[in-house]
Parts: sequence; C-alpha cells; structure tokens
Amino acid sequence: MSTSPNRIEAFDAVDLIHTKRDRGALRTEQINWLIDAYTRGYVGDEQMAAMTMAIFLNGMDRREIKDLTMAMINSGERMSFAGLGKPTTDKHSTGGVGDKITLPLMPLVAVFGAAVPQLSGRGLGHTGGTLDKLESIPGWRANLTNDEMFRQLRDTGGVICAAGRGLAPADGKLYALRDITGTVEAIPLIASSIMSKKIAEGTSALVLDVKFGSGAFLKDIDRSRELARTMVALGEDAGVATSALLTNMNVPLGFAIGNANEVRESVEVLAGGGPADVVELTIALATEMLDLAGITGVDVAAALTDGRAMDKWREVIRAQGGDPDAALPVARETHVVTADRDGVLVEQQALPFGIGAWRLGAGRARKQDPVQHAAGIDLHAKPGDTVHAGQPLFTLSADEPERFARALEAVAGAYRIGDPGEPVLDGGPLIAERIGR
Amino acid sequence: MSTSPNRIEAFDAVDLIHTKRDRGALRTEQINWLIDAYTRGYVGDEQMAAMTMAIFLNGMDRREIKDLTMAMINSGERMSFAGLGKPTTDKHSTGGVGDKITLPLMPLVAVFGAAVPQLSGRGLGHTGGTLDKLESIPGWRANLTNDEMFRQLRDTGGVICAAGRGLAPADGKLYALRDITGTVEAIPLIASSIMSKKIAEGTSALVLDVKFGSGAFLKDIDRSRELARTMVALGEDAGVATSALLTNMNVPLGFAIGNANEVRESVEVLAGGGPADVVELTIALATEMLDLAGITGVDVAAALTDGRAMDKWREVIRAQGGDPDAALPVARETHVVTADRDGVLVEQQALPFGIGAWRLGAGRARKQDPVQHAAGIDLHAKPGDTVHAGQPLFTLSADEPERFARALEAVAGAYRIGDPGEPVLDGGPLIAERIGR
Repeated sequence: MSTSPNRIEAFDAVDLIHTKRDRGALRTEQINWLIDAYTRGYVGDEQMAAMTMAIFLNGMDRREIKDLTMAMINSGERMSFAGLGKPTTDKHSTGGVGDKITLPLMPLVAVFGAAVPQLSGRGLGHTGGTLDKLESIPGWRANLTNDEMFRQLRDTGGVICAAGRGLAPADGKLYALRDITGTVEAIPLIASSIMSKKIAEGTSALVLDVKFGSGAFLKDIDRSRELARTMVALGEDAGVATSALLTNMNVPLGFAIGNANEVRESVEVLAGGGPADVVELTIALATEMLDLAGITGVDVAAALTDGRAMDKWREVIRAQGGDPDAALPVARETHVVTADRDGVLVEQQALPFGIGAWRLGAGRARKQDPVQHAAGIDLHAKPGDTVHAGQPLFTLSADEPERFARALEAVAGAYRIGDPGEPVLDGGPLIAERIGR
Repeated sequence: MSTSPNRIEAFDAVDLIHTKRDRGALRTEQINWLIDAYTRGYVGDEQMAAMTMAIFLNGMDRREIKDLTMAMINSGERMSFAGLGKPTTDKHSTGGVGDKITLPLMPLVAVFGAAVPQLSGRGLGHTGGTLDKLESIPGWRANLTNDEMFRQLRDTGGVICAAGRGLAPADGKLYALRDITGTVEAIPLIASSIMSKKIAEGTSALVLDVKFGSGAFLKDIDRSRELARTMVALGEDAGVATSALLTNMNVPLGFAIGNANEVRESVEVLAGGGPADVVELTIALATEMLDLAGITGVDVAAALTDGRAMDKWREVIRAQGGDPDAALPVARETHVVTADRDGVLVEQQALPFGIGAWRLGAGRARKQDPVQHAAGIDLHAKPGDTVHAGQPLFTLSADEPERFARALEAVAGAYRIGDPGEPVLDGGPLIAERIGR
C-alpha cells in the first residue's frame, strides 16, 4: 500500500513480498538484491520471515531456486580444492535418528584415493550433529583453518570439520530465521540452503542422502524425491557431479542413538562388524561417492574388513588432535527397559527415540547449549527380532537421572511387541531409490 | 523441528505458526497467548510476520477472527461512554481518495442529539488521514486526554481526535508490522484491526464505509463484501449495533484531494453546497448512524441547508482550539492541466490522483514525516462532464514546484476525454450495497 516515492535502492522488499504472496515469480536481479540486502541487514528479519512463509506456501520455480542458491553462494567466499591433485567427493544427509554414517564413510572413501571434505554441523533439536559425536573423542577438535583443512585433505584424504563462517553467510542467517519462524520444511529453502554451502565449498562430486519416513523431517517419500531432484539439478547446473539416494528413516539407523555410543558403533563398522543397516548404507554411499569421483571397479566392502578403513580413521582422527585409543565417555546413570512379553518386535519409531535421546542430554534445544556426550539410547533389538519377556529392549544413559522420566515418556508407545507372523512396520527397504544420471 | 523439552510458557510460537501454515485453526487460548506474548515482546516481529503471512494465505475462520479481535481489545484499556446520557454512534471508512466525509458527517449527526466519538488517524501512503486534514485549521489540536474527549462529547456531541495509545496497543504494533511485511490486505487482520479499536472505544453504534474499486485497497467488491460482513458480525457479537455500506472508490470523492482543500470542500457541504457525491454519502452515512442509535424520522438533509450542521461544526472546531474563521493555508505554487480536446471526461481513476496528491506533499511516506497542508489536487471536472479544449481539468498545488513532474507522471493516463455517447468508466453508483440487519 505504501510505495515510497523517495526510495533510492533498486527494489522495495514489500513489493517483492507482494509478488511472492500473490504467486508471482521473483526475477533474478530481485533475488540477488534481496539476499544481498538481507545479508547486510538492510532488509529486516520480519520482512524475510514474511517472504519465507510466502515461499513455503506458494513455492518457487526451478529458475528461482537456482537464483536463490547462487545469490547465497555469492554472499560469501568460495573455496577450491583444485590444487589437491585428487578428486573431491562429499556426502550430505538431510538428517536422521542414529545417523552416524559420515564417521565410517569418510575414511572408507579416502582409502581409495578420493579427498573427502566433510564440512559438518552441530545438532539442534532431536537431530544429532556429526561434530557433536566426534567431540566425544578426547582431544579431537572441530575447528580448522582453511589452510589446515587443505593440508589435512592433501595428506590424509579426509577431514570432518566445522564449516567456516565465510561460506554462504546468507544461508546461516536465513536458516536461523526459518528455525524460529516455522518455515524449515520448504523445499526451495532446504535445497538452496544445502546446495549453496556444498557448491561454495568447491567439491567436484556430491552424494545426497535424502531421508523419508516418520523420523525424517520430510515424512513423505514424494516430497523427499522432489527435494532430491531439485538438489541434483542444482548441483549439475553448478558443475558438481551430484546424485541422491532416498533412504528410509522410519526406524533408527543402527543400535546407537547419541554421541559417544555412535562413535563406538562407527568404530565397530570400521572393524568389519557393526549393525547390518549401517554397513549397508555406508557401502552404498561410498560406492556412489567413488563412482561420481571417477573411481570405479574397487571392492569397497573389503576395506572395512581388511583394516584399511580403520587405519585411515585413526590417521584422520589423530590429524585433528584426537586420540583414537582413548576411552570414550560413559554416562553416570543407566536405565534398562525390558520386554514385557514374548513375541516379535514389530515397531520401533525413529522420531520418538530421537526425542528420547535428546531429552537425555544428547541434543540441545538452543544453539548455545552444550551436549552431554555420554547421554543417549542403545537399542538391543531391531524390528523383526524375536524377543522374550524380561529381555532388555533398550538402555537409556544420562548423567542426570532426573532426565529418565521425560525420555521414557517420549518413547512410550513408540515400540511394540507383536505375535510371530504379524507384519513388521519398518517402512520397507533401507535404500528406496537412486536419483541422478 | 525443534520443540524444546524445557519450555515453561503455555505455547510455542513455532507450533502455532506450523498450525496456521498447515491450514489448521488456532484455539482461543492459543490466540490469547499469541497476542499477549507479542504485545509484551516475548514473541518477536519475525515470528509474527511469518504468522501474518500464513494468515494472509490460509485465512482464519469466524471464531478465530472473533478471538483475535477480543485478544487485541484485551491488550489495552476499554473506554465507556455510558455516563454521557446520549447514544454514541461512530463511523469508520476503509479509506479512499478525497474521502473527507468524517468532517461534515460528525457535526451533522451531532445536531440530532447523538454523540459522535470519531477517534481518527493520520495518513500513510496515498491514503489521507482525517487528523492531517483538520490540522490545516489554525489552532486545532488532535490530541485530547480521555477526560477532555468525554467532556467535549457531553457538551457538544462531537469530537474528532487521535486515538489514545491505550486502545488495542497490540493492533498498533501489528499494523506497523503488516505495513512493512506485505500483509496489509488480509481480511481477518483488517477486520480485527478496525473492530478491536472501535469496540474498545466503547461506541454503542457503528457504521462502516467499506470501499471497493480501483482506488480502494480491496479492489474487488466481493472481497469488500466479505470484509463488511466479517466486521458487522464482529460488532454485533460484541453488542455494538453495526452496519456497513459498500461504496464505490473508482473515482475520487468530491473535487478536492489533499488537506486544506478537503476542509474547504467540507465547509461548502456544511454550507448547503458542495459536490453531489460528497453530499450523498454524508447524508446516507448520517442517516445510517442515527438509525442505529435509535434516532429515526429526522430530516437529515435539512440540517445541511438550514445552518445547524455548520453551527455545530464551528462549535466543535472551537472546542478543540481551532479558529473556524481563520484563512486556510494556500500553496506557493500551482500547475493547471487543461483539456487537449473537446469531448466528455469518461475516466478519472482515483488511485493515480491519490498518488499524485501524495507526491505533491499531501501525504507521507514514513510515519514520522510531516505533511504539507496546502498541497494537493483540485479537480474541475468529474466523469460524465462535457469539456472543451483548453478548459482546466485539474490544478496541482505544492509548496515545492519540483514536485509537479512526479505528480504529473502519476496522473498521466489516469483520465481520458472521449466522444459524447461513449460509456463513462465510473464503476457504477456511489453506494452499491448495505450490509446489516
């Protein structure tokens, strides 16, 4: 209603909000202006919040999403791994309960001569963060300079560290806003958020692990597929060889949900053991990452059983100050939940177990909160397993025993023992689809 | 995604945003909490901006709109005119170009023994404000205490003054937010904004002048009707006798668009003259206001021609320090636009003329800007009038001649001289419908 007659800037934020509110498409120069003005603080959080809700409800077309991604990349620095002398290949997961795959995956891929620059984040809410998990390891540090990262990648082939603030700063600001204004689950915003950072990071290949199911933040496989396709197209447009796997997040991944216990489980996988689902997904993603990097015809699984992946793990952990032989923290208190009858475990919902682990202290409610590295949940049975009355089903661990009650509240009703022959509600196979060339 | 396990407040703003985003209805206690928390600053502008965009796009049902209105009323004080000993009746217009109706209407209604508490606002953008117009009168002051207002209403029957900050403060905060975040035109938000202030003000009767047409902020008569019905229902629910007229805002109202010139035209109406459309709407609204206040069978039009309304005007203006005999300000510069051919004026669009007057200095772009009281546009012909080449069509007035160019730009193409017999594009009759019991 009030278009000022005296404006000097190129565009008016209210006009742009009206355009998206009324189902129009924003032009390239409007998107560039909006992201630049928002990063500089000229467009306020309240205006961007209205815009993101309009984007959530009215969508963006492919060209707008690409423009948004490029504008976010251009808000900061771009890295390059061209001087490494080996192909870079990266993985991003949209996040799941018990998802520790980055830990065994990084060394496994590095074994075969690819460089794996895993710029990772911390957890918020029930979704764990890779850096939080690794910080269970005494001495390990997440913050590297760009130089340190480059050198480690060159020397060891692997690094897992915190993304610098210089990469797509607009995305950091926008993500924090979306988190408090209820617009996290918008596909154009998710896709541009993830891909702006990965493209700015400078990887030459990227595999996306896009989750679906009750424990994923997009529950519906159709929406996950749309997100995957959008991101693969963004990657290809930017010259990054990109593919995606749609994977099942109805059931927790592996047996461990937390931080230190997930490191423990990852080390088991690197020692040639570990839960079948974690091993399956690690091998599938590693194969995909190597394929995109042009490294084919290698026996990926063998590197888990013959010690090469474990050696690489120890090398990379040591390079970041960690002691791979140090004891991991153990919680002060545990609480075991047992089966109340004989039967088959037919249901084990990922989300409530993720929330339970969070409430035990494994996750944080606010960015500035610490996590308790030994807190979490260890499952002792998975859907389809036969169980007997009195047998342990899962163990809760926490430093503060008063946390058990609310964690138990979260998981109550999230698992069920049925009769033999009853259908198991695990949502189908772990890897549902591949998207990409 | 992040529902904190440790919250102590009754609701989480993000949960409420998700509900409205996903087309749900907010419960009464959620709306009460939201408005209270927003007024106190506990819910931030960015969260409320996302919520208002979700309301804009997904709507609110009747119960939610009523709850929102009541919550905004409860954010501040409520006034009462019960001690006046006469019925109170008020008018609200959704705003139009050249809309000075409050000025002749207030004294006209007061003549018949009703009390007219016109709490008014200032203009923003191309829409003029009643207080800005009256401040053209030397000495007149807009700010009265509640006591002064009550005494003046008791003694004279009329008052036009600034609404105190104590009435529905949530609305003031929310309106300012909507203005910069592109959600002004949402019917649930408009209806609750207008009605919260009018109900809190304590009037016993209320007539709504709801504009439609190209110069109204709701262009479409169907949306204007929906807004009118929503507001009439809100008023009746709150015990305020309420009705609405849907009136045509395709063409400016009267000949004067500005501030001092609109006062001059209003005084002409009070002297028994003035433009036919201003007289028609003034009499229709006065009759409606008196009817709702239980004052029927009176000859409203006679009070304009026999001097009673003029006497009341002078009394009320004097009561607020104004000198009704003082000369009104005159602009330093004028620019006359003449007809370039013989014919009939077939088009005169309200909005461009409103923007033109704004650019001349009659309106403000930001709340803190002053207005130039003598700036504006005087029309010399209305749609349907026969004109001759060289005859003045309208006069621009401004204190700063450099403003003429952009004002002329605004009105270029907004009027057209056609051939006799060509249809006149005035959008039909001035008063299209009445809504109410």
